[in-house]
Amino acid sequence: MSVTARYVHQVSKPAGAPTRDNFAFVERELSLKPGTALVENLYLSVDPYMRQLMDGGWELNAPLEGRSIGRVIESDDPGLAVGDVVWHRHAWRTHALVTADEARVLPTYSDVPLTAFLGILGGTGLSAYVGLTKVAKLLPGESVFISAAAGAVGSAAGRIARLLGAGRVIGSAGSAAKVDHLTRELDFDAAFNYRDGDIIGQLAKAAPDGIDVYFDNVGGDHLEAAIESLRERGRIAWCGGIAQYNATVPPAAPRNLFDVVGKSLRLEGFLVRDYQPVRTELEALLVPHIQSGAITSDETLTDGFDHIVDGFLGMLTGKNIGKMIVKV
Amino acid sequence: MSVTARYVHQVSKPAGAPTRDNFAFVERELSLKPGTALVENLYLSVDPYMRQLMDGGWELNAPLEGRSIGRVIESDDPGLAVGDVVWHRHAWRTHALVTADEARVLPTYSDVPLTAFLGILGGTGLSAYVGLTKVAKLLPGESVFISAAAGAVGSAAGRIARLLGAGRVIGSAGSAAKVDHLTRELDFDAAFNYRDGDIIGQLAKAAPDGIDVYFDNVGGDHLEAAIESLRERGRIAWCGGIAQYNATVPPAAPRNLFDVVGKSLRLEGFLVRDYQPVRTELEALLVPHIQSGAITSDETLTDGFDHIVDGFLGMLTGKNIGKMIVKV
Repeated sequence: MSVTARYVHQVSKPAGAPTRDNFAFVERELSLKPGTALVENLYLSVDPYMRQLMDGGWELNAPLEGRSIGRVIESDDPGLAVGDVVWHRHAWRTHALVTADEARVLPTYSDVPLTAFLGILGGTGLSAYVGLTKVAKLLPGESVFISAAAGAVGSAAGRIARLLGAGRVIGSAGSAAKVDHLTRELDFDAAFNYRDGDIIGQLAKAAPDGIDVYFDNVGGDHLEAAIESLRERGRIAWCGGIAQYNATVPPAAPRNLFDVVGKSLRLEGFLVRDYQPVRTELEALLVPHIQSGAITSDETLTDGFDHIVDGFLGMLTGKNIGKMIVKV
Repeated sequence: MSVTARYVHQVSKPAGAPTRDNFAFVERELSLKPGTALVENLYLSVDPYMRQLMDGGWELNAPLEGRSIGRVIESDDPGLAVGDVVWHRHAWRTHALVTADEARVLPTYSDVPLTAFLGILGGTGLSAYVGLTKVAKLLPGESVFISAAAGAVGSAAGRIARLLGAGRVIGSAGSAAKVDHLTRELDFDAAFNYRDGDIIGQLAKAAPDGIDVYFDNVGGDHLEAAIESLRERGRIAWCGGIAQYNATVPPAAPRNLFDVVGKSLRLEGFLVRDYQPVRTELEALLVPHIQSGAITSDETLTDGFDHIVDGFLGMLTGKNIGKMIVKV
């Protein structure tokens, strides 16, 4: 079988915020090679970390990587059968050649949508789970503040914090609609719009007794406010800084960083790639709640491969609520 | 028995660096009260954290607290006998009334000088030990960088890191004489003078393969250099920031703080008061090495109670090598 595969390549490096001109659509005939399977991609993930890769991590004019879900349509790999639905990393394209080594055949849970494996059951949910349990070591009853809480990792962190028995769960987001979404749909106890300014004051109001854990998706002003609010022996799980990926000069570091000593705080950065085996725990915790309908994977779907670049750029400017996923 | 006890009181708050005028010597007749013991102080500790207490933690025109060693000269407390040598917190004075609850009768190890209980076996050594083992979780073979390494905590950290099997041990200090002391007397593998500037460059030269652990006594520029040098999954034990105690505006935070995420670093502040039970471990590790002469408690002695204020002010400006102790 031969298919006309469509790809998006990065063709130039961005200066600050990326634009459509940094990308190009290309086509290529693709046919099965010995020992591989031909996969038709169904869903593609676009993520904040890709912004960093655009500064030199990604090769220009070459196929890109990213989390993807597809269906095997032809196979010469004994580990993959036609019809298997697989998770793999050959992304930003409509079709890919993959091997069993590179792919994970997804389990077929009833009542669990496929997109959840790019969202709350994927790297996104795993980041949230690892940050709360392995890094911040959240205990039942403790207060948690989550920045960019309407984003992919943030909304998963809110759901998971609740399941882990957190006390007060507080979130920040970048619009009034997102703030509403947090308190109405995602069961946050309090939320505020960071674009209204005075993050320290807004957080103090939302968490009058302080916080024990800060799940940081943002850095910058949010980190300073969290250090102000954290109680003694508080922990910060630092997952990323989407607000800083486009910065051409280093962002201001928190002026109160020295309080890390006085309050015996712990600030720990982590990369989810170091915690892949924890996925088993995550699925055991979440799948029953997804099946019962108690938890949904919070996501925004971009419809059509033609719109993948717009979906990516929109995610970087906060157009998504929850995980941004492209339906091929 | 009645004695004329001499005290130093703080009489005013400093604006920036403290001066002699912030203190006054006073005398008071002191006699035994029921249920107490009268102690003649032998050695007093002056420590960087006291600079912070001067901003409001210490009551003006009142007796001050601090780590002290004295001998019981009269007792109405059944837990304390005349002749006992005790560790207690009634400092900045020649004599004190203490109870058994407030005091620790010091063990009588042969060949261990009393001053060691204010130095490498005291809060100073405990800070170093806790930072390396409980906070940074140093593993044998790992490289350690210690700032203000000729200071009280820093020199103890260097000794202890070596005993724990650290690989390369690197220190910074504020004069050429101190740098010499680190490499010649304290067995550091490399040391540099931070007053020569370019801390990032000097550290890179001293640790060409990077560091695994940073024991931070300083904050500021040193923290930035350490973040630059730390390898993936490196740890920072943050013990204090003597360079910042006199600052009237918040110090600059490290511009590369975001690397905490990319390199999965951990930055953890700690206060030694939370780790008092660990002292047993510390003594078990150190006492045999002190008795054999392999380790000495690195210290600078200020001779005479009249000079306690000068000793304290000198310690704040780095006049000491090792622990600054006042011999009453």
